[in-house]
Amino acid sequence: MSSFPVTDKTKITRLPKRGVYDTETVYSILDEALFCTVAYSNDNQPFQIPTGFVRIENKIYIHGSVGSFYMRELQTKKLPVCISVTLIDGMVLARSAFHHSVNYRSVTVFSEPNIVTDNDELYKALEMFTNKMCPGRWDDIRKPNDGEWKATMVLSFVIEEASAKVRVGAPKDDEEDYDLNVWAGVQPLKLERKALIPDPDLKAGIEIPGYLA
Amino acid sequence: MSSFPVTDKTKITRLPKRGVYDTETVYSILDEALFCTVAYSNDNQPFQIPTGFVRIENKIYIHGSVGSFYMRELQTKKLPVCISVTLIDGMVLARSAFHHSVNYRSVTVFSEPNIVTDNDELYKALEMFTNKMCPGRWDDIRKPNDGEWKATMVLSFVIEEASAKVRVGAPKDDEEDYDLNVWAGVQPLKLERKALIPDPDLKAGIEIPGYLA
Repeated sequence: MSSFPVTDKTKITRLPKRGVYDTETVYSILDEALFCTVAYSNDNQPFQIPTGFVRIENKIYIHGSVGSFYMRELQTKKLPVCISVTLIDGMVLARSAFHHSVNYRSVTVFSEPNIVTDNDELYKALEMFTNKMCPGRWDDIRKPNDGEWKATMVLSFVIEEASAKVRVGAPKDDEEDYDLNVWAGVQPLKLERKALIPDPDLKAGIEIPGYLA
Repeated sequence: MSSFPVTDKTKITRLPKRGVYDTETVYSILDEALFCTVAYSNDNQPFQIPTGFVRIENKIYIHGSVGSFYMRELQTKKLPVCISVTLIDGMVLARSAFHHSVNYRSVTVFSEPNIVTDNDELYKALEMFTNKMCPGRWDDIRKPNDGEWKATMVLSFVIEEASAKVRVGAPKDDEEDYDLNVWAGVQPLKLERKALIPDPDLKAGIEIPGYLA
């Protein structure tokens, strides 16, 4: 199993037992997350942008309009970025306030932007992004035309410096608190896809496709 | 209805129609979100930390261990921060790849850290944080003792420079695409609380309290 090197920036200093550096864990969290936040700074003023993304092999891809201010800032200035994703899996309800916690899986990546100019890579990134957000969707829809491709900027970020932080399981209380008359456990949280809402302008006679059902 | 001033940092330049500056919208998004990401930079190297938080009046409160490296960095250096939260409400499935989108509500706040030293404010922040994560929980649990209070650092961030960005509703396709034989609409997403998992060490005879049922 391969792992990311532990660097000054990725070393988990607080609760180090929660730190995970293997690529499999890092990639699985990135693949489940539907958005990331991209942080960068300009003259030490931090900014962050939430955005959809897709991981392909050892790269994170984001896309936006060629007119996007922050995409152009990132690309022209080659600004260092910190990208993070967080999945909240549950509330950890301990007997004491102090030991309340959250079950979560988060990833932090330090990287820098590269503009994607190769058409095959661009096409693949958008196809896989679309199918990540809605599995099976790409084959069903109108593909981008020349003008739409020209209006789209894709940036890639190599995942070389990365770490995950994970908490799972039951609460951990102080020894003497286990005798308190307080219910303790975990309240799981899950992001769920709910019943589809058809476009009010949906053409008559179009059924919900199998990949959405 | 009060609003946040539009500043160089908070002006929405991309799809400006999605920008929202009224305090009610900004606060409602902050109050629904279970975690935020706090971005800061050191020598132009950006970092970000996902963390639970609570909004009380015009402040965001986060807490952590007094031993937390990043909490101490923020506090001792008074680093400017960018705090963001994002709620994903649904996948917007258009007829063309290009017009696929996401329904979301996000907030970005620019501020700086203040350490909370007033005990009443500290106590209130932790109580309201606990009840945000699990409504009704605070009154049921063992309150922090002196040692636990001393081990906890709370930072506040005044919400003065803030904006929201919101997309709602159906896909918007190009005129000529409405005739395509492609299902279009929205697939809603919702973070849901699921069935409780009792602590394996739960004391016998303790029922699930009403506020959790």
